Amino acid sequence: MIRRLCVIGTGLIGGSLALALRRAGAVEEIIGAGRDEAHLRRAVELDVIDRHTTDLARAVLGADLVVLAVPLGAMQPVCAAVRDKLDGDAVLTDVGSAKQAVIDAVQAVFGALPARFVPGHPIAGTERSGVEAAFPGLFRGRRVILTPQAQTDSKALQTVRTMWEQTGAVVEEMEVAHHDRVLAATSHLPHMLAFALVDSLSRLGDRHEIFRFAAGGFRDFTRIASSDPVMWRDICLANAEALLTMMARYRTDLESIEDAVVRRDGEQLLEIFRRAKKARDRFVA
Amino acid sequence: MIRRLCVIGTGLIGGSLALALRRAGAVEEIIGAGRDEAHLRRAVELDVIDRHTTDLARAVLGADLVVLAVPLGAMQPVCAAVRDKLDGDAVLTDVGSAKQAVIDAVQAVFGALPARFVPGHPIAGTERSGVEAAFPGLFRGRRVILTPQAQTDSKALQTVRTMWEQTGAVVEEMEVAHHDRVLAATSHLPHMLAFALVDSLSRLGDRHEIFRFAAGGFRDFTRIASSDPVMWRDICLANAEALLTMMARYRTDLESIEDAVVRRDGEQLLEIFRRAKKARDRFVA
Repeated sequence: MIRRLCVIGTGLIGGSLALALRRAGAVEEIIGAGRDEAHLRRAVELDVIDRHTTDLARAVLGADLVVLAVPLGAMQPVCAAVRDKLDGDAVLTDVGSAKQAVIDAVQAVFGALPARFVPGHPIAGTERSGVEAAFPGLFRGRRVILTPQAQTDSKALQTVRTMWEQTGAVVEEMEVAHHDRVLAATSHLPHMLAFALVDSLSRLGDRHEIFRFAAGGFRDFTRIASSDPVMWRDICLANAEALLTMMARYRTDLESIEDAVVRRDGEQLLEIFRRAKKARDRFVA
Repeated sequence: MIRRLCVIGTGLIGGSLALALRRAGAVEEIIGAGRDEAHLRRAVELDVIDRHTTDLARAVLGADLVVLAVPLGAMQPVCAAVRDKLDGDAVLTDVGSAKQAVIDAVQAVFGALPARFVPGHPIAGTERSGVEAAFPGLFRGRRVILTPQAQTDSKALQTVRTMWEQTGAVVEEMEVAHHDRVLAATSHLPHMLAFALVDSLSRLGDRHEIFRFAAGGFRDFTRIASSDPVMWRDICLANAEALLTMMARYRTDLESIEDAVVRRDGEQLLEIFRRAKKARDRFVA
């Protein structure tokens, strides 16, 4: 049982985590913290958190578990704000989409990586953001990746693992570099492609016509382009190297489709499309 | 009322059209035709069509409405096979995703464009294909674009318009070049991006790992990569110029995101993502 949970950032992820843990009866008290007073009050109204404060240092006082659920760019200043007030045995974890960057930020603030810090990342989300988008079932059946370090305390690791399991998630451990590469491929790159597509079309002269005739495929394909721009800016900056590697690969592959169309090379196109369909059908099955 | 409808190609689109018209009580008899005897027998078993034949010339005999629902690359040979057997007052239409190419194919076969040929394109589909994927509601509330030509007979146009309206679709007319450009932007380009992404990831050494950690966003984003490869090869070849224009635009836009990541230019990334989110949110609303 978590006695006092402090969630810093009560948006889609932080809010859904609070709701899920409360529903599971896994927590006694939830403190929500963040910069935006109105947003926090809304989180209290929606019964996502019990109490709120915009004073991060006060927020963590007496908390046995502190979850950082802010955009990646805010991790370091938030850590700096809470560092001296964390309970000696408080466990600290985060939900960031790029793990090396969070580890670096925590290390920069604490000098060395605290033993009771457990880097984590739930592979879940929707294109919506904010506490109004939060719901307790967000993590059910989803994977949560933890990337414990050499100095990570095994009891702290177990605390965070249990927390996620109580939301219905499946917890796995992974190397940091591997996490960052896998996420660059399956999440960060696709978001870039969707943002680029919508942006590209939105600057066409006849964009209203264009969007009017877009069908269901387009709606699904571009859903992730409705994601939070600040969060995604931070992800790009935080996982830049892995993302750039994937973008370069992708650029080459897209160019070979373009080349095949230029050459009217039906055989080549068919081969690429068949390989892709086979991989995608296998992924869904 | 359509007395005898001949659907050449009883896949997702042709099959769904047959089912929708039958359900609407808009047709007396439906003949299904195609190359694959087993597929056609399955269409009869599923009550999608009344009778079937692999002899296209026989299929159109006595039909008052003939629908070409085959991949774009098959349009010309299919037209050639039926040309001399079409009833004098039979209306001919198609469902191809690229209109200039179909018009060219019909013209090549008939010498001049027949007055009773009405080029058409339902903006509907799923990533599944074949008669088993067909369902009568596929076109409900969806747009169908007709691109009549100067020589198109107005009664033939009305027949095709009525046919689609009876499936629950909303029919609009459009210039051919405009259709081909709009579809390149909203459908053909996104399919290329999805095929390229899945293909790119499927050739990574740790692809099993990669796909294992893909979440809902990835599933939606790549849904269209499960589409029929032959159909999409034909679309690329048939709408090559419009597609290449969009691909070149897109390449430039994706490269500016890549450049912004290289330069760690958060302002630029934020601006692009905000513009895209705004356009996408407006499109959905």
